[in-house]
Formats: sequence, structure tokens, C-alpha cells
Amino acid sequence: MQVIITAVGPDNRGLADPIVHYVTGQGANIAEIQMYDHDEERVFAMLLRVELPADRYAALKDAMQQIGAETRLAIRVWSPDERAARPRLAICTTFRPEPALALLRAVRDGRIKAESAVMIGNRPNCRALAEQFSIEWHDIGDAKGTADDDRLIALCDEYSVDYIILARYMRILPPASCWKYAGGRIINLHHGLLPSFPGMRPYHAAYACRMLTYGCTCHFIVPDLDAGNQIINQSTFTVPPGMPLADIIRLGQEDNEPTCLVEGVRRVVDREVKLHFHRVVATNVGRHHT
Amino acid sequence: MQVIITAVGPDNRGLADPIVHYVTGQGANIAEIQMYDHDEERVFAMLLRVELPADRYAALKDAMQQIGAETRLAIRVWSPDERAARPRLAICTTFRPEPALALLRAVRDGRIKAESAVMIGNRPNCRALAEQFSIEWHDIGDAKGTADDDRLIALCDEYSVDYIILARYMRILPPASCWKYAGGRIINLHHGLLPSFPGMRPYHAAYACRMLTYGCTCHFIVPDLDAGNQIINQSTFTVPPGMPLADIIRLGQEDNEPTCLVEGVRRVVDREVKLHFHRVVATNVGRHHT
Amino acid sequence: MQVIITAVGPDNRGLADPIVHYVTGQGANIAEIQMYDHDEERVFAMLLRVELPADRYAALKDAMQQIGAETRLAIRVWSPDERAARPRLAICTTFRPEPALALLRAVRDGRIKAESAVMIGNRPNCRALAEQFSIEWHDIGDAKGTADDDRLIALCDEYSVDYIILARYMRILPPASCWKYAGGRIINLHHGLLPSFPGMRPYHAAYACRMLTYGCTCHFIVPDLDAGNQIINQSTFTVPPGMPLADIIRLGQEDNEPTCLVEGVRRVVDREVKLHFHRVVATNVGRHHT
Amino acid sequence: MQVIITAVGPDNRGLADPIVHYVTGQGANIAEIQMYDHDEERVFAMLLRVELPADRYAALKDAMQQIGAETRLAIRVWSPDERAARPRLAICTTFRPEPALALLRAVRDGRIKAESAVMIGNRPNCRALAEQFSIEWHDIGDAKGTADDDRLIALCDEYSVDYIILARYMRILPPASCWKYAGGRIINLHHGLLPSFPGMRPYHAAYACRMLTYGCTCHFIVPDLDAGNQIINQSTFTVPPGMPLADIIRLGQEDNEPTCLVEGVRRVVDREVKLHFHRVVATNVGRHHT
Repeated sequence: MQVIITAVGPDNRGLADPIVHYVTGQGANIAEIQMYDHDEERVFAMLLRVELPADRYAALKDAMQQIGAETRLAIRVWSPDERAARPRLAICTTFRPEPALALLRAVRDGRIKAESAVMIGNRPNCRALAEQFSIEWHDIGDAKGTADDDRLIALCDEYSVDYIILARYMRILPPASCWKYAGGRIINLHHGLLPSFPGMRPYHAAYACRMLTYGCTCHFIVPDLDAGNQIINQSTFTVPPGMPLADIIRLGQEDNEPTCLVEGVRRVVDREVKLHFHRVVATNVGRHHT
Repeated sequence: MQVIITAVGPDNRGLADPIVHYVTGQGANIAEIQMYDHDEERVFAMLLRVELPADRYAALKDAMQQIGAETRLAIRVWSPDERAARPRLAICTTFRPEPALALLRAVRDGRIKAESAVMIGNRPNCRALAEQFSIEWHDIGDAKGTADDDRLIALCDEYSVDYIILARYMRILPPASCWKYAGGRIINLHHGLLPSFPGMRPYHAAYACRMLTYGCTCHFIVPDLDAGNQIINQSTFTVPPGMPLADIIRLGQEDNEPTCLVEGVRRVVDREVKLHFHRVVATNVGRHHT
Repeated sequence: MQVIITAVGPDNRGLADPIVHYVTGQGANIAEIQMYDHDEERVFAMLLRVELPADRYAALKDAMQQIGAETRLAIRVWSPDERAARPRLAICTTFRPEPALALLRAVRDGRIKAESAVMIGNRPNCRALAEQFSIEWHDIGDAKGTADDDRLIALCDEYSVDYIILARYMRILPPASCWKYAGGRIINLHHGLLPSFPGMRPYHAAYACRMLTYGCTCHFIVPDLDAGNQIINQSTFTVPPGMPLADIIRLGQEDNEPTCLVEGVRRVVDREVKLHFHRVVATNVGRHHT
Repeated sequence: MQVIITAVGPDNRGLADPIVHYVTGQGANIAEIQMYDHDEERVFAMLLRVELPADRYAALKDAMQQIGAETRLAIRVWSPDERAARPRLAICTTFRPEPALALLRAVRDGRIKAESAVMIGNRPNCRALAEQFSIEWHDIGDAKGTADDDRLIALCDEYSVDYIILARYMRILPPASCWKYAGGRIINLHHGLLPSFPGMRPYHAAYACRMLTYGCTCHFIVPDLDAGNQIINQSTFTVPPGMPLADIIRLGQEDNEPTCLVEGVRRVVDREVKLHFHRVVATNVGRHHT
């Protein structure tokens, strides 16, 4: 059984020791360890991916909870195998409804074998979408749209979320949030082709280059690393010379972005891809390897 | 009648004066002037685009020939209107035959309303292609593939070429050649998405970024300027995670690149686009503006 | 005598013809022509650099004024030779006073052989500086700091300014303003190393790369072109690992930036450098060529 | 006592377990773990940085040697504290002798408190330098300059080298070599400003941008990561407009690069900086923090 343990704490001392000590003592095989220490932001974190006999999973969760209580560390234990048949999604939005709508439909129609567990927004714009699909909605933004980052993670915990889907959620997750759900659990839709067009206005940036190709990118969020190496899916469309920017953006937002996100989430939920040492790799169960 | 005059000479003195003087004296309207002066390379050049009554075109050509003879300037006069119904193409190649082959077929089948006037290579690889389509072939490369740049231009002159198509021609044209056929007459196929992936190995560069989107770009060559702002057409395709680079390159070379070039050349030949002050603009006759 | 003519108008028809026709008729040698046509912004412009017998300069100015009146074109005639001994500077500022202060002192002390003709700000911050040096001050900003771009050019005309110095003036000049004073008359201080660190926060950008070298750039503003090719002077300083960003910015603003601007303006005023076909070239009178 | 353990092996199974198990069993505090797994290159690696009571260092080395023998892993144990007073340097070169010469002089004169243990080249060019300073020389290149990467590491092991200095060594170390001496033991001199000017010809690249500032960068080599975030020292110089590239390169190679490398190595040897979670941090003993 594959198990991912994440730990985040306020300082570096003793972060790794008790967890690693317990895990190796239980005969788990360590498949991956990543650590992170950034003094300036006071975030110290570890990702531990292990192979464990399934009958020890419950004991591991208990032990980690106890270590967390003793050490002030925020420790989370998760296994992609636990709810593999029907993982639970948190769908996060800001302004644009199209990608979230496409995702909700794909889940409803069984094209994505998952459960839409909760919708979270830092703006109220997509609230009606949640109501339409009878999904609980939480607004974590203040009047200016500033998000309560801790509340987002608390909600994902509360709803036992497996994957956090950032469906044109326009806030940057802080490193601590990324680490808490590290290991390939946060999936973002960026409305430009990565790595060429990062930033908040990728349509404008590509247009300024007078490009005739526009695209978007569905990728895992990896803390402390540039996005671009963790691409799950990309979609593109081309336009004729002279098409105005407003038309291009409309084509992208209404058609290309939703399609890209749905296929990206499907690949993760169907476990055709996974995050492995900061890179997306195709798994054997995927259609391209059978 | 739109007329483009290019002049290239070894120094800056008196380059513009006689030509501009004659043209303004003939009542032509100046639509665009571009000048270029690069001491280090000893290339001084001018592009002059004018509107002229059609009955003065022959006299203009004579006058320019005379000025060229008197001043040691290499002066060329060209009008896109002259052979608008069936412009003549020079198709230049190096190794890969696919884009040239697709272009030759499109011309043969009337999808591109042009004439394949001559094929030019700096490598003998595509010679058989010329034979297959009964087009005259000229090898301008030495044993190492180094191209005789002056010979390329001389051949285009000799065959009365309207447009030079660089169909995976892997040599960089020197500024003097670019200026001699300036004004939207040189069309290149680059096997990566511009401006993100220039260079000789764009597939490798995009793959190193772990992208899932690959593309190519058909663009006008503009002397002394970065490519990327002169895009005529772009085509893309996406691949699933885990596809090996060799497979990606094969998809790109055999399918995506030929398609991109054919549509790009068609846009130019059908005069849906033109080069206007270093930028590609859609013309009124194009399908998107009617 | 070298003369620079700039013309800016609302459309493309007849922009070049009357000016070019007059100039070539007067026996002037054309050294450089640049034209610009951007439909989207409705700015059509031309730069004409000619060599003219000095005794025809006054007549040329009259003729251009008359053409401008007849054609609605904004035409300006300028010669760097006219006030070569003591050119007049407009010093434009926003928040930071240090570069302007250094420049004012260098002019006062004769290290820069020029005259501080006027100070212009889009924020009132540097008003006291103008008072201290008894220079007329004009605030062209509204309450939000938005600049009246036309007023800036009108003031430069009114004060017969030869060179516009953007001494940490934090607004972008529109293309029309750049063209009106084209030909190497607008000098900007950018607080980062170009072309690597453009943008509004170059110190932050370099710090995010964990660089230990910081710098700034004095360059000519060239309309419609990326800055970076028109560099007049660059200054750098290095810091030890671990220096906080605030300290780095202070070192840059208080010491490095003022030094860079003063030397850059000196090079232009002493005519060691000039703008030639979008590039900075060293002139023969410069210290490095004698 | 700070101890760095590196392990490199041909596959991923059991790479971390025995080492981590032993170390945590000995009461060592884990300060940092980094793991790396790249299927395509068949390189699997781990860096483990621990705090250990000094009296257990010898036992740790024995245990790791034994684990290495049993598991086919290439395991190395190193402590910066062991030869802190006089660490041993391997100086690697290709063509340019200046940086190596400056380093050898600084060591000889006691400005760098280290020992020049061995010189290694993939070209014979700097052999005379080794002879002049009576240092053993090893040529690891074939007739084309292709380096025997394993031989380089074997030599560093044989000479008990603490730090590998790449003094204009123009070959790229493969990931396996980088991991074997990971943890801040490989110091490179790059002849351009990072991250703006990577590549083999940074002088040419900056010159093509018409920059007036040139620089170089002394940085730690970190496997699998872009250089630029691990900068130890940068040096720059500025040139007047018009200086030919050949003169610029000469200034850089003969003066700027050697100065930069000597100060960079001094900072490491004097332990003013160290590599900490892929970043260079200033230590308390450094001059800027006392």
C-alpha cells in the first residue's frame, strides 16, 4: 500500500526524526523523501512516501497523530489506494465558472469517477454553480477576495478530500498549504501554456508576442518549485491572423480551458499519471502502456 | 499598384537618395520605408513600399536598374500584383522532405494556387522529390552542407521567384539575402512554437520542459528582427504523459509540420495576410473579414 | 549639419511624401529613415535624419512648419549641432529624488555641460529639489499620479529642450511622445540590468533569483522596440550572501543609480555616443577612439 | 558534528532504508534529506545531512562502507568539520589557465587557507601550471577532450578531496558525479552572470544584447536543479559603448573571472557560506554577521 505522509512545522529541529524513525521501525520501504526549509518564511516541511503492508495503515495513522500532538507538527497521512474507486474532490474557484462547470458535469455523468465533495471560493461568483449541483459551498474570501488559506486546508480536511482542484482559482497557495497536501493532490488549471506563459495574464502575454497558438495547462502544484515540470495535460487552439484578443480569450475560456481541466483530472482520478520525485510519470494502468 | 523596392549596398552613402528622389518625383505615394545600417557586417539596406499607377511600373523597373548600375547598389523591384493569380515559389530544403512534399502536392492539386518554380537544397536529400514532381533542382551546398547564399538569391532571380519557401531549410539566411527579398517574400517553417522555442532543437527544448504540447510556426523572415512577431500560421498537437521524444518528433515531422507549412503558404498566396511594418496583418480579402 | 525631422499623425496617408519630397529637393542627403504604423493605436510616425548645408536649416524649419500646418502632422525639426555647447535638459521625476539630485549637482558643477531647463513630475515629491536649484517645476500628474503625456511634450517644446531625462520617472511614455522626440533625445534610467531585469521591480526580481549582483541601466528610449539594445551606460554593485533586500535597494538607489545616470547623460551631452539605426554607437570624438 | 552522507545507485529499491535506519538508530538528528530518482538516466541518489556526536563519526563511516558493500550503492561520508582548518582542493581545468592560476597563487600565499591537492584536466592546456606549483596533474580527457567522468570522481576520492573546484572546466558533470559530491562540495566558475546568461558563450550572448555590463558567477553545483540559486559570488565590470567583443572577453578572462573565483572559494573555505536545502546561506562566522 502506498502511503504519503506530510509534515509541516514552525522550525527545523526534530521535524524528520520521529516520523522517519517510526516508519523505518515498522518495516516500511521508503520510496521518496523530500524536505524543505525556508528560514525567511518559517516553513519547514517533509514529504515521505512509503510502501507499507495494508494492515499497518491504521496503526501508522494513529502513531502519526500522536507524534503530531507531541511535536506541534501538522502531520497528515494519506493513501491514494484508500478511496481509489471514488476519490473526493474539492473544487476551488474565483471568477470564471466554465472549468468548474465542466468538471461538475463530468463527475455527474460518470466520465470522471470521483465525488464532488465541496466547492470553495474566494469570491462568491460560483456559488450558484454549487447550488445547481447540490454541493456544499464555502466562501473563504473577504470583501477584497483575500483568501483565508488556513480555512481552505481545514475545509479539505473536514470533507476528507483526496484531491484539491484549482479550477481557475486565482490565488497563490502558500508553501505551507502546498506541503500539507503534497504528493500529487493539488491540481491547478493555468490559462496559458507553461512554462512559456506563466503569470496572471497569459492570453495577453501570448497576444503581445503575436502568437496564433493559445493554450492552457493542467498541472500538479509542487511547493517551492517552478510549475512547468508537473504537467498533466495541455490543450491548445489556433487562431487566424487578425483575430481580436477578446475573441481569443472567449474561445479559450469557454472551450479550451474546461476541456483541458476535465481531461487532466480524469487522468489523475483514473491513475494514469502520478507525481513521482517532482515529475509527472505515466503509470502502467494508463491506456498508453497496456 | 503596390510595388516593393529593395536596395542593398556596401556602404551608407547615397543609398536612399536616388531611389527616393526618383520615386517621389514620379508621384508615387510612399507607404513604408525601412532602412538598415550595420557597420560591423557592412550591410546597408532599404525597403521602400509605394503605391504607383500601374502604367508606370515598367518605367520604374528600368529606372531602378539604371540607378543600380550607376551606384553599385543591388536594387530589386517587385509587385505582388504582377503574378497574383499564380505566383512562383522557390522551395528550399535541407534534410527533412515532409514539408516540401506536402507543399508540392498542395500546389499540384490546386489547393495552393502557385507554381513550384524551382527547388534548392544545401544537401542532396530532397533531390528525388524534385525529380518526382519534375521540378528543376539546384544543390547550393558544399560537402559540409555550407550553403552558397549568393547562389540561392541568384537562382531566385533567375527563376523569377515571387516567394522563397524555407521548408525545413536549416541554414540561416544572411541579412543581405533577407533584405534583397524583403517585404514578405521569404516564408520559413520553424519546427517549434515561436517565440517560446527558437533554436535548432525546439522539440528537445520543449521536451526538457516536460511539455505535453508541441507545435511549429510558419512565419515571414524579417531581417534584423527576432522572429515571432511575423507569424503566419501555427499548428500544435498534444501528447499523453510518458510519450518518448522520438515518437513526439515523428508525429511533429510527419504530420504537424507539413500541415502547418501548407496552410501558411496558402494564406500568403491567397493574400489573406501580408507583412506590414514588420507585422503580419490580415487583409480584407481574407475569409475572416468578409 | 545633422538634422532630425520627426512627424507624427493620425493616419498613414501622405505622412512621408511631402517631407521626403521637400528634403530630397533641397539636396539633403538622407542618412536614416524609420517609419512606424500601428493601426490599433492610431499612431503613424516617421523619423528622418539628414545631412544639410547649415545655411538651409532655417528654411527647412519654415517649410516643415508650413507642411505641418497643411497636413495636420505634428512635425519637429531638431539638430544636435544647434546648442551643442550647452544643450537644454528636461528632468522628469516621480518619487525617488536621488538620480535627479545627482544630475542637478553635476550640471551645476560643470561636470555635465548642459543647462537644467525645467523639471517635470507626475508626483510632487521632487518639487523641493527644483526649488533648491531654482529651476521651474511643473506637476503633470493628477491625484493618482496619472501623467498628462501631451503636457509633458508641450513643456519640452516650450522650454526648447534638447534632451528629456527620465530620472526614475515611473510612467511609460506613449509611442506618440517617443516619436516626437525620437532620434536619441529621450534618456531613461532603469533601476535594473537590461535586458535581464525589465519591469517595475527589478531589485525584487534579481533578489528572487538569489543574485549577488545588482545594477541599473541608462538607455535611450526607442519607440516600438524593446529597450536593451540602446544602452548608454550600466553600473553594478555586488553584495555578500545574506544581505537583506532592503539594504540592497538602499545601496542601489542612493549610490549606484545616481552615478549611472550622471555618467550616461554626460556621454550623451559630450556626444561620445549617439543613436544610429536603433543602436548606440560611439562617436569619434569620444575618449575611447582618440 | 555535521556529517553529509551521499548514496548513488542503479535503482530505487532499498536506497534509503538501510542508511536512514542506521542513522536514526544511532541517535543522529536528521537535518536534511534530498532524494532523486530519474528512471531515464538510471540514477537514484540520496543526500542525508545529519548532526552526530563526533565520537560516532568513525563508526558511521565503517557502517556505511559495509552497507555500500552489501547493497551495490556508492556511499560517501564526509564532514566539513574534519579538515576545516585546511580543506583539500581538486582544481579542474580545460583551456583557460587564468582562474586556476589565481587560485593556486591565493592558496600558496595563504589568502585561501586550503591545500591544492590535485589538478585535473580534460585538456592538457594547464599541465604546465600544475608543474609550476608542484601539484600532481591528471589528464582525464581523450583526444577530443571527452572527459572520463568516473575517473574524475575516483581521483577526488583518491586524493581525499574536500572541494572540487571547476576553474573554467568546460564539461558538464553528469548527475551521478554531482550527487556523489553533493552537499556543497562542487564549486563552479561560470563566465557569465547567472541566471541571465547561462550557456557556453555568455560573453557573446550579453554582447548580442548590446550590454555594457559583463560578469561571472561562482556557484555551487546542485544536481538536477538549474544553477542560479546557488550563487556564492558574482563579479562584474562595465565597458564603454563601442568596445569590441574581443577586448571585453580579454578583460573578463584575465581579470574579472580569476578575482571572482578566488573570492568565491575563500568564502567556502572560510565557511562564511554553506549550501542549505539547495540555497546558499551566510553562516554566523561570516564577516557580515559578526
